[in-house]
Amino acid sequence: MSGVLYGVGLGPGAPDLLTLRAARLVEGARVIAYPTLAGGASFARSIVADLIPDGAEEIVMDVPMTVERAPAQAAYDAGAARISEFLAGGRDVVCLCEGDPFFYGSFMYLFARLSGAFEVQVVPGVTSVTACAARAGLPLVARNERLTVLPGPLPEPELRARIEGAEALAIMKVGRHLPKIRALIADLGLLDRAVYVERVSLPDEVVCPLAEAPERAPYFSMILLTKGADPWL
Amino acid sequence: MSGVLYGVGLGPGAPDLLTLRAARLVEGARVIAYPTLAGGASFARSIVADLIPDGAEEIVMDVPMTVERAPAQAAYDAGAARISEFLAGGRDVVCLCEGDPFFYGSFMYLFARLSGAFEVQVVPGVTSVTACAARAGLPLVARNERLTVLPGPLPEPELRARIEGAEALAIMKVGRHLPKIRALIADLGLLDRAVYVERVSLPDEVVCPLAEAPERAPYFSMILLTKGADPWL
Repeated sequence: MSGVLYGVGLGPGAPDLLTLRAARLVEGARVIAYPTLAGGASFARSIVADLIPDGAEEIVMDVPMTVERAPAQAAYDAGAARISEFLAGGRDVVCLCEGDPFFYGSFMYLFARLSGAFEVQVVPGVTSVTACAARAGLPLVARNERLTVLPGPLPEPELRARIEGAEALAIMKVGRHLPKIRALIADLGLLDRAVYVERVSLPDEVVCPLAEAPERAPYFSMILLTKGADPWL
Repeated sequence: MSGVLYGVGLGPGAPDLLTLRAARLVEGARVIAYPTLAGGASFARSIVADLIPDGAEEIVMDVPMTVERAPAQAAYDAGAARISEFLAGGRDVVCLCEGDPFFYGSFMYLFARLSGAFEVQVVPGVTSVTACAARAGLPLVARNERLTVLPGPLPEPELRARIEGAEALAIMKVGRHLPKIRALIADLGLLDRAVYVERVSLPDEVVCPLAEAPERAPYFSMILLTKGADPWL
């Protein structure tokens, strides 16, 4: 009997925004796996540090941050190979994922490599999109409204067209693209409708109008924009 | 000192997809509020039925299902008035919300009525979008991909244009619009890429290719569609 690979969404960062299912899986894990970026600490692991049992084996996949994909692919290849050894030996592996595993999550790379050969169970998590909306006091979509989620690194002409065509918008992975995106939103006359949220739900969270956002944004930052004149009454 | 209104997302339906924060708030609630539709049972209440303390006061807002908005507005007016009496008397109120409060959630209507006068804290929840993706084994978006969320009741020409322009798609509130949406997706040559999910995470959940979906879909049903040729490797 092979083990089961669990891809466990941990939510946006606050430890109490874990689901009960995720907490139970982490608390019961004998083998956990998680990625780190370029030798840094694992954000996912930090969210559940207090729940990981003593003596759990940890599989760390260090993913280099390069423009080319090959080095990251090699890191996931190696991680998948180590995970598959445990699974083939009948041991379950709990893979830690910030946010939700299938929503811009690195777990997708493991899923692609392992789901053909092993049972995989994915536990959804609270995404940063709704966590940011909650903290910003900004209802996102009601009734027949559309929501568009865009990554900030998209080229400017595409971002412009997508923002113009959207009703409610979440722009992810803002980071170093903040000045470009803010100028674009201002140019479209929408600056007073945009909210900036950084490191949502963490102790050093920032929530402010986009106009007042700092020049330098971390990777975990988001812009929310709603155009509806509808007061949701 | 006024009380605090908590808008608590409960996730898609499985009781263990609640967050730890939501569970603690419900377990400690002295006053809870929730909507029911046209005299039916409350889905939100059913998710946390085992957690509601004995003796908690319950504010039920029965929302009529009519095409006109006025009767529903009157129901939320009345509910907000009752909630505000508790808040003004210094008592916290925990409002139960399926999914996430600000993502097609009826809590928005209470938020619009009460957030000007009282402190409101919103607890985000797992949305049905990522819960469906998890159950369908369907990674939604990676890297610089876009996600579009559409309500199924949109008019057919708009649905068509939005589906054509999207990369990854979640179509919510499918219900009685299933035949229309399925025919449209087939006409666009995308039927083999679409997945149907009904009552995600509940005991009577259905997950199948859209081509095999039943003719009659409940309100809580969704279609997921991804176009990426990218195998997320």
